[in-house]
Parts: sequence; structure tokens; C-alpha cells
Amino acid sequence: MKKPTIYTLAQELGTSPSTVSRALNNSPKISESRRRAIKELASRRGFKLRDFSPRLTNLCVLICTGTNDETIFSDYTDQVINGVNRYCNEQDLELSIYSSPREKLNSIDVVKELFRRNVDGVIILNANSKCNFIEQIEKEKLPCCCLLSGNPQIPNNILSVNNQTPARKAVEYLIQLGHRHIGFLYSAPNNQAQLDRLEGYKSALQAAGIPLKEEYIPEMPTSPETTGIEYGFQAATRLTEESPEITALFAASTDLAAGARSAFYRKGLSVPEDISLIGCDDNPHAEYFCPPLTVVDIPNIRLGQSAATWLHRKIEGDSSAKPPQEPWMEGRLIIRETTAPPHSE
Amino acid sequence: MKKPTIYTLAQELGTSPSTVSRALNNSPKISESRRRAIKELASRRGFKLRDFSPRLTNLCVLICTGTNDETIFSDYTDQVINGVNRYCNEQDLELSIYSSPREKLNSIDVVKELFRRNVDGVIILNANSKCNFIEQIEKEKLPCCCLLSGNPQIPNNILSVNNQTPARKAVEYLIQLGHRHIGFLYSAPNNQAQLDRLEGYKSALQAAGIPLKEEYIPEMPTSPETTGIEYGFQAATRLTEESPEITALFAASTDLAAGARSAFYRKGLSVPEDISLIGCDDNPHAEYFCPPLTVVDIPNIRLGQSAATWLHRKIEGDSSAKPPQEPWMEGRLIIRETTAPPHSE
Repeated sequence: MKKPTIYTLAQELGTSPSTVSRALNNSPKISESRRRAIKELASRRGFKLRDFSPRLTNLCVLICTGTNDETIFSDYTDQVINGVNRYCNEQDLELSIYSSPREKLNSIDVVKELFRRNVDGVIILNANSKCNFIEQIEKEKLPCCCLLSGNPQIPNNILSVNNQTPARKAVEYLIQLGHRHIGFLYSAPNNQAQLDRLEGYKSALQAAGIPLKEEYIPEMPTSPETTGIEYGFQAATRLTEESPEITALFAASTDLAAGARSAFYRKGLSVPEDISLIGCDDNPHAEYFCPPLTVVDIPNIRLGQSAATWLHRKIEGDSSAKPPQEPWMEGRLIIRETTAPPHSE
Repeated sequence: MKKPTIYTLAQELGTSPSTVSRALNNSPKISESRRRAIKELASRRGFKLRDFSPRLTNLCVLICTGTNDETIFSDYTDQVINGVNRYCNEQDLELSIYSSPREKLNSIDVVKELFRRNVDGVIILNANSKCNFIEQIEKEKLPCCCLLSGNPQIPNNILSVNNQTPARKAVEYLIQLGHRHIGFLYSAPNNQAQLDRLEGYKSALQAAGIPLKEEYIPEMPTSPETTGIEYGFQAATRLTEESPEITALFAASTDLAAGARSAFYRKGLSVPEDISLIGCDDNPHAEYFCPPLTVVDIPNIRLGQSAATWLHRKIEGDSSAKPPQEPWMEGRLIIRETTAPPHSE
């Protein structure tokens, strides 16, 4: 006779494998009488519960979104989740994804919600300083790791790379090429990584004695639902119209840089002849930009791996595990072909 | 006194919340004596198992990869998972991700592996005709839905959009513009969607009486680990060198088109003045290409939603649920700025 499995039992009972599994695991979702019937058949068929492998530890990536975001992914989240996925595959862990608007997360019982998903620990992406729900997660001692957030309430659970230094280096490189009129583009209010990049931009200008001009830093998008690439297009269009003397632009993400590149194309500005461009976060697209994009390389795949490693240690009970700090977290400047000296007048 | 939760119990016991949860749910991973001790404390503290919400239904997206793929995501998988995620959020389902090389999936007990992840149903991405593991999933009656695969063994579990007709329309459009030397780029051997697009290309040429030239269709990548964008660059470079008379290229994915665009830039070929370009799968990047990319729009977000809807019906026991067939699955041609009549000689 064929060896009984959850599936043969489900077939015989005309029910789903998950119902059988729940019954055998005493899930309260299944009625007592139904549970008994299923267990009886399982025992009659010689099914042993230990044939049934225990579930894996579940690492959840929680992606905070805007209220009406069309998409939960970006080049950044892709790379981080890739890194988390690598670690999960190596260590035989389950990876789950949960996305929800920030406002909603602040209004629900997040821990209960994560628990319904059998989550053992959570990596939080795209949080900002207004994500109060994280304090709830901390209070209830659910292991967590928040990437790059500026939430001052949770200093012990933030994993951050140095965003200020590489941004400063990028702007210093533009200054060294001879640029004096340099724009700065960012899109995410309350995003600590982008705010740090802004600080790097400011400190490079200051060190070179170049006065900071507020008009070179377009205001944040009015609609938080504008995507990075759309907003990069809009903001760079405005910037080139209102401050045509600008000869270089530092964009705080690759999506912003892609939008800006498209705006320059539309305006008939050649890159880098008319305007230089630097993006943040290296990814396969950046290398195949036309021309290939100079970037501050933030190794987001490694960041995802580190976050997963750190979180796993906490799940395993090592509550003293300190956030990793490694040299690669400094980021680095990759010079490609969107940067050149400014046009002589 | 504070209401007891999994977390307060874990704290008191100096263990992790997941250990407590497993013990209370009779997981075989926890020893009998430990289980008893945890249950005793829970009962002493007045914790009721029914305070503990039952777990959600878990929809798993299984991404088949090459052996050494650097990344599990592409614009295509991003969009599909986005659609699945929307449905899961609407319906209060858990979404999990599992990625593994195709060869490995063929060699392991996939159903057991999915079961360890508490998976109730699985959506399979990037499968090809060599993915025999799918038959195992079917045999064991785990609800599944395979996207766009060419696996002839599983006709009842494939959700496919029409790839041939829109590809044909795209190439007909190029012919109508006056092109006679049209290249075709694809990258995934055994990928039914890309093979269907090739058929569409061939049938458009045939209908117009243009002879098919094998040299206009570069061979597949020798290393299966080359990404779409890299391969697009390499293949388009070779194509323009070996067949310089080509005035238009139809690429079977946006990544391939991005690589080809970069190759043309490197060769000093202007798009669309020197060469026209059409990609497949619309996404935010395509619209911000320089110039914006003409594409065959395959609505992958809706495809993900449809796959999740269909799979959910099967999980709920509706085994007769037929694959959805809706008008939008036909795809459509979005004409942007990478297509124009060929240069007159």
C-alpha cells in the first residue's frame, strides 16, 4: 500500500491538504469533531505525525508603502530581498513578504498580524520616522531589524550603512571636475538614508566654500504616490528650467537618476556634455544606462544578507547580537560615463 | 495584571515566542517535556489558545532560477509578485517567496519542502519544459498554477497570456513602417512565452512575404547565467556587427531591449533614426527610456492577480476552476519613440 501522506489523506477525505495538516496540528480553525475524524483516519492509515516535517523558521520582509503605491518593489527592495533570500536558502529558512501602507500599520495590531503569518522575525523596509508601529514590535519582543530608518525610538534594531560619506565623496568628485552649480534630488520625506545623502552633499559644498542654494534642491513631491522615477523626471525638468546654470546633478536613488536622465533627454541636454549625473545604489540597469551611470554603490544585496544574519541570531535567542558594522557598508563611488568637466562658457 | 501573550510567556521562560507558539501548537519540533512545561505556565497565566489567531492561508510564489543566478527578481517577476501581493492583501492571505535552481527542484521532494513552509498553494514562475518537479506537485494534489510555462505535462495548471498575437502585431507595425531587415532577440531556452513571441515574429514576416533569415535571430546565450540585460547587450552587439543591414529589432523582454539599447549607444547608432527597437512587457522603466520604449504591453500585474485568484479558488476546494481567459490577456502594442521608418539609403 502507498505510504499515507497529508495528500493521500486529503484525497480520501475529499478535503484540502491544509485542512488535514491543521487538524493534525490541533489548529483551532478546525472543529473538534472534524479534527477527531481526520485524526482517526490518519491513525487507521498508519500516518505518523513525525512523518510530517516541522515548519521552517519564517523570516518576513515587511515593506512599508505609501497609501496608493502602485508597486511594492523598487530596485532597492529587489536587491535587499535578494540578499535576504540568499541567506534564507543557505540556512533553510522560509522567506515571506508582507506589505502594507505605513498609516495602516500604525493603526492595527501589527504583532498579531505577523503572528497570523507564523512570522518568527521581521525585516522592515522603507520605514520612516513616523512608523510608530515598530515600537509595538519592540515592546512585544518580536525579533526585528529595521533597515536605514530614522526612527529614533528604536536605536538597537536599526541596521544602517553610512550614506553620508559616499554622498560627500560623489559631490567632491563633481567639484573636483570643476562643477560649481550642482543640484540635489531626493524624493522620500523622512527617509533617513536620503537625508544622510543630503548632509553629505551639503558638507562637500561647505568644505569647498561653495554656498548652498536652496533652489538647487527641489522640494519633495506633493503627492507621496509619485514614484521615484516619475518624480525624478518632474523635479529635474523643473530644475533645468528654473536654474539653467546647473551643470551637475546628484540623485539620491537610481530611480531618481533614471527619471532625471529622461528629463535631460527631453530637454535636449546631453549627458555628460551639458550636464553630469550621479545616482545612488548600483544595479544592473545603471551599468546599461545610455551612457552608463556613475553611482554611489550601496551594496544592498550584502545589506539584505547582513540583516537576515543579524535577525536570525536574534530569533535564535542571542538578544545581545549587535548590528553588524563592516567596511563595505561605507559604500563607494563607481565612476562611469555620466560625469565630465562642465562645458566652458 | 497584563494579559498573557505568546510574548510575555516567552519572556518569562527566557525563550523565543516561536518556541512558545510551537509548543502550544503541539509542534513535534519541541520535546514532550518542554511542551508540557510551556503549556503548564500558559495555563497558570490564564493564556487561552483561542487568543491565538489561526494562521493565514499561505500562497507561495516559487521562482525557478538558473544555477548561479545573481538575482531572483526581474521586471517581470516584480510585476507578477506585485499582482499576487495585491490579491493577498485584499483577501488576507500570507505571501511567501521560495526560489531555487530548476535542477535542484527536480532532484528534491518539492512537495515536502513546500509543506515545511506551510504552503497551501504555489504559483510557479520561470518554469520551463524541463521542470519535471511540477508533475510531482500535481500528483500530490498540492494546488498550483504555473505561469506561461511550456510544460506539456500539466495543461490544466498553466495560466498563459497570448504572446503570439501581440508579437505579430509589433512586427507587422515595423513592416508597415517600411522595415524589411528585422532582428529578433530572445534569451530563455524553453521559455514558452518567448517561443510564442518568436512564432509571432515569424508569422508576421511570412504574411508579408519577407524571407526568414536565421542570422537575424542570434543564438541563445551559451552561459545560462547571463542575465537578460547583459545578454541583450552582447547579442545586439553581435547582430549589428554581423548583419549591419538590420534597421529594426524586436526584443522578447524589456531587459533584452535595455541591453540592446545600450549596445546601439555603444556602436553610435541612434534610436530610432538608425535602428528601431520594440520591447516586451511594459514597466515604469520603459516609459523613461531615452527615448521612451515602444513595447508590447503584457499586463503582468493583472496576470499575477489572476493567478492568485485562480489558485485561491483551487485551495478553497474548487478543483474544477478553469484558467481565466480575459480580453486583456491579448496584450497590446504601446507605440512610443523608439520606432520610426528606416533610413532611406
